[in-house]
Amino acid sequence: MAQISFERLKRRLRELARFGALGGGGVTRPAWSPQYEEARAWLVGEIKAAGLDAWVDPAGNVFGATDISAFADDRPAVLTGSHIDTVPEGGTLDGALGVIAGLECLHAIVEQRLPHARPLAVAAWIDEEGRYGSLFGSRAFCGLLDTAKVPELAAVDGERLVDVMTRAGFDPARVGEARVNRAAVSSYVELHIEQGPRLEEAGVPIGVVEAIVGIRRTRLTFVGQADHAGTTPMERRRDGFLAAAEYSIKARDLVVKKSGGRAVTNVGVVRVHPGVSNIVPARGEIIHEMRAPDPGMLERLWKDCRALARRVARRRGVTVDVVPQSATSPAACAPRVQAAVADAARDAGLATTTLYSAAGHDAQNLATMTEAGMLFIPSSGGRSHRIDEWSAPEAIERGANVLLGTLLRLSA
Amino acid sequence: MAQISFERLKRRLRELARFGALGGGGVTRPAWSPQYEEARAWLVGEIKAAGLDAWVDPAGNVFGATDISAFADDRPAVLTGSHIDTVPEGGTLDGALGVIAGLECLHAIVEQRLPHARPLAVAAWIDEEGRYGSLFGSRAFCGLLDTAKVPELAAVDGERLVDVMTRAGFDPARVGEARVNRAAVSSYVELHIEQGPRLEEAGVPIGVVEAIVGIRRTRLTFVGQADHAGTTPMERRRDGFLAAAEYSIKARDLVVKKSGGRAVTNVGVVRVHPGVSNIVPARGEIIHEMRAPDPGMLERLWKDCRALARRVARRRGVTVDVVPQSATSPAACAPRVQAAVADAARDAGLATTTLYSAAGHDAQNLATMTEAGMLFIPSSGGRSHRIDEWSAPEAIERGANVLLGTLLRLSA
Repeated sequence: MAQISFERLKRRLRELARFGALGGGGVTRPAWSPQYEEARAWLVGEIKAAGLDAWVDPAGNVFGATDISAFADDRPAVLTGSHIDTVPEGGTLDGALGVIAGLECLHAIVEQRLPHARPLAVAAWIDEEGRYGSLFGSRAFCGLLDTAKVPELAAVDGERLVDVMTRAGFDPARVGEARVNRAAVSSYVELHIEQGPRLEEAGVPIGVVEAIVGIRRTRLTFVGQADHAGTTPMERRRDGFLAAAEYSIKARDLVVKKSGGRAVTNVGVVRVHPGVSNIVPARGEIIHEMRAPDPGMLERLWKDCRALARRVARRRGVTVDVVPQSATSPAACAPRVQAAVADAARDAGLATTTLYSAAGHDAQNLATMTEAGMLFIPSSGGRSHRIDEWSAPEAIERGANVLLGTLLRLSA
Repeated sequence: MAQISFERLKRRLRELARFGALGGGGVTRPAWSPQYEEARAWLVGEIKAAGLDAWVDPAGNVFGATDISAFADDRPAVLTGSHIDTVPEGGTLDGALGVIAGLECLHAIVEQRLPHARPLAVAAWIDEEGRYGSLFGSRAFCGLLDTAKVPELAAVDGERLVDVMTRAGFDPARVGEARVNRAAVSSYVELHIEQGPRLEEAGVPIGVVEAIVGIRRTRLTFVGQADHAGTTPMERRRDGFLAAAEYSIKARDLVVKKSGGRAVTNVGVVRVHPGVSNIVPARGEIIHEMRAPDPGMLERLWKDCRALARRVARRRGVTVDVVPQSATSPAACAPRVQAAVADAARDAGLATTTLYSAAGHDAQNLATMTEAGMLFIPSSGGRSHRIDEWSAPEAIERGANVLLGTLLRLSA
């Protein structure tokens, strides 16, 4: 049975981890940062050195392919990939594994002249983690991006996407050209670490993903009144922060209870204005995120949370402004891709289980235009989006070999 | 009966309000900012134009005096004053009124040659609002400043006091020289807006302050674990922000209940780390402020809050780091100064009531070295530390005339 070169895969993971490396381990490599730009240049060099064709599209996605005519409508490609951007203080495998393993599979295929009827390509989608816009690169590729809104996209700190793209030598007005036709892609499969504890706890090496959660992000701004923090009687204060704090605690409990543990929620961004110790906060602003594998559940939970926000605001004498930030629908994975992963694992003598992805992935965008799926390997302790994110070397090797088997099946 | 010139007082208030003026009203004029430096230069000019001696001490305090030898041990001065720095988006009277009314009283005294046995002086204490350190200027003057710690003082945004002092042409190493001997000051009285609703609601024009609250500021950092906000099971998350949110709500309720409404509390500074929507917050950091007019009450409340912080942290699986930021003791006002204010009001045909100050003031530092007191005028709607802070013109005129009567009594 064909095998990838694990030594080469490890070397590339190690080299990629240098870009944005932190002193204590882990990486900070947000899309379009100088560290990211260096990593992209390195990746293009590795793709070429592997004997593959390499190119970067107008959205900033990097591709490597067995055939320069990949994505031509008359010869649809089997596509794999993931992303090389990270969250701040993230790990070295989230995204990186899928790109480097995909590259290694294609490298092994051309090197060993493994038979394939369709062209194969690997993608490094830009800004999966959403510094400027979640899953940006795959949205552009799949035609899901509202290009008219590109000028409005900005990071939490206010930095605008158009400025960083221009700085990197890209023309933001040409992002729409990254879109390809449906006929150009035959199927998509993405290898990723699970980022949760289920595979490790079940002792199963390969997870076949059935569905990817939908994610809804909403900005809630509770607006009260700035007042002197000494002289204003307590009962007259209209504190925007305390309202945001109460909502955050109760929304968490509501989502856990009403979803029966199937949905998750987080408040990761909090800002208080004016932000000085001797002024009652006029404004408490949060970004509330919810994830569920089922569209109806996600909608019901969000309606309940919105009603909760209004109740909390009313009782605390403040107003609340609710602005949707982003919303993705839960995506089902294609049965043909699930079967290819399961068959490849079986041939390698590896057990599988089905699960859903609690994280968003570029695969959910690809699922709107082609038959798409994912496979997971165990994450140590379920840790991810952390500097101590880790998967065992043998888990990585197994995952890469199952990806190779899957790609050979899909391109046969 | 001697009177101040209200036209002159109004002109000076108007002119001072230009420095750091905001488009929609109000002022942002933190200590050592360029706006503050311009306001100080303007004030020195006004003092000189009023026929008074003017100087700036090594801490940055501005003085005007009827006599260049004020603060000499053998001829103790009667001192008045307040501050010309503001909170961000503050009003035009908090601090400014006491400085400009004090200047006007001295101007009237020298212009009208009103009899006084002791020299009189007016001070504009620097950084009352505590961008770098609360009540900084009056602490330096009264010898309450730990000068060894000056190099550590910094604003919330990290800007260091030594850097801004140097930029303004001051030598931070000489701050200790701002201290004067106890024998140099005979008494201190400060006019201020109430910043609360009690005088307005009681329909009383002059408040005689009996005591000034003590203020305790503490930084609490709840430290959990950064985790992926999708894939980490809800029950395993250790969310630093939710712990900080729960503490903030419960500490507020605890202080209100256990103080019988006499103490107040605020959480005005909140920071969440790493601060992105798809990562469970590893850290929630707040600055918790408490104020009480009684030292025993302040101490008991703080002990209860500290125990609360530990309970919340334990139950949520996080740790809490508690670092005192600053603490002032409640200060009683001198009976002789209270009597002088009450007598001056009575002579002007104005009713008085006694109250305590729920805000900290430079007078509390002066109270450690001389007989000190304060008088308040009504604040419209009790508003303060807001751009719509306001007191009626007649309230201001009455307050300034009662200040004049008080100063003439104290300097007789």
